[in-house]
Amino acid sequence: MKRYKKNSDYSYSLGTELTLELLLQRPEEVISVYIHSRQKENEILDRIKGLCQKHKIDVIYSDKIFNIVSDKENCYIIGAFRKYESIINPKSNHVVLVNPSNTGNLGTIIRTSIGFGINDLAIIAPAVDIFDPKTVRASMGALFRLNFQYFESFADYLQSIEKRAIFPFMLDGARQLDQIEIPERYSLVFGSEASGLDAVYQTYGQSILIKHLKTIDSLNLCNAVSIALYQFTKGKV
Amino acid sequence: MKRYKKNSDYSYSLGTELTLELLLQRPEEVISVYIHSRQKENEILDRIKGLCQKHKIDVIYSDKIFNIVSDKENCYIIGAFRKYESIINPKSNHVVLVNPSNTGNLGTIIRTSIGFGINDLAIIAPAVDIFDPKTVRASMGALFRLNFQYFESFADYLQSIEKRAIFPFMLDGARQLDQIEIPERYSLVFGSEASGLDAVYQTYGQSILIKHLKTIDSLNLCNAVSIALYQFTKGKV
Repeated sequence: MKRYKKNSDYSYSLGTELTLELLLQRPEEVISVYIHSRQKENEILDRIKGLCQKHKIDVIYSDKIFNIVSDKENCYIIGAFRKYESIINPKSNHVVLVNPSNTGNLGTIIRTSIGFGINDLAIIAPAVDIFDPKTVRASMGALFRLNFQYFESFADYLQSIEKRAIFPFMLDGARQLDQIEIPERYSLVFGSEASGLDAVYQTYGQSILIKHLKTIDSLNLCNAVSIALYQFTKGKV
Repeated sequence: MKRYKKNSDYSYSLGTELTLELLLQRPEEVISVYIHSRQKENEILDRIKGLCQKHKIDVIYSDKIFNIVSDKENCYIIGAFRKYESIINPKSNHVVLVNPSNTGNLGTIIRTSIGFGINDLAIIAPAVDIFDPKTVRASMGALFRLNFQYFESFADYLQSIEKRAIFPFMLDGARQLDQIEIPERYSLVFGSEASGLDAVYQTYGQSILIKHLKTIDSLNLCNAVSIALYQFTKGKV
């Protein structure tokens, strides 16, 4: 096993709870599970070993891989798994991220999205790698419950989904978030941390503003997505 | 100038916009401004040099400090500033963080809080250092507009403020966020990333739940704070 690269065909879950979640949600993708000599015998380890046995997954006792693939000191269990294909459900509600560039932010957005019952994430390229171990870790394993799909352009995305309301979130959004009537089918669209959505997104649907004071330039991307998810799903979660 | 330590009596703004914000909000605390040889002449540099001249702050052209105090490659301006005392306004609305442990999260929370017009942050120790350059950077300079104060305990905090509604955010909160009537004066109280608030916080006021599915253990702290701030300030920002 080697250090993770974007073009690797496998990735890693770095941590105990994360590896348990991997084994529960995606056992068919797991290549092997590594256990560090400092890992104590406990209930969660028993569950992990039990799941490995059930799914005929190799359990390897070795400390070497931890120095190679993990930069956290308190990581004592690693799961190696094959990257898998995923597609979004064209009929369900979506979060759409245009050119997200931060691995941690992407993982945190996935965690919050799954928590609010939005299980489909479209990503418009170029974008950060969803299988980067930092994204996997920041998602706290929510990635393993997610349907996701990369698209070359927003036009490509629109062509592959069923008709719905499109809500681009923009600093010059035409309506305020709390004044939007929530339709049955929608996509919530967000730009990158650095530059937000291009002006052309005003033409794709009802642009939304999360109003804040001029004392800050913008909200943090992952906070903006969280607030939007809360407002759109409240009373339905 | 040396690498930052928690017990240093100065800290750094690592970046151009951040240093501009420091000079605009806290010029009296700035010790000196460092400019890297790769920094181009441009409008923002002119503003920074103008502010330094106005406030009689030394401008130092040297690359050495950048290797010592910054780990980002594209940081070409650094402000060195004295850490300053700050107290919260006992009469205004507050965010209260109990034992926050992540520098980046703290900075992002400050940014969102200032953006929603809550300018007072109480921190219950033990807690991360608000002047850590990572917190300063994640706040995008919003720290320089913030009133903040550390307290030894939540009881100490309560003794030093005027009467108001206390809302501890808890996974077993008694009422859901969207069912709360927003009072005039309030404190929004959040526990640490790792363990949330202790059960005793149920006795301090009206505990609140941000409802999410069981597919995730909890919301990310900084997302939870953002959602709460949005709901409490909406229509008033």
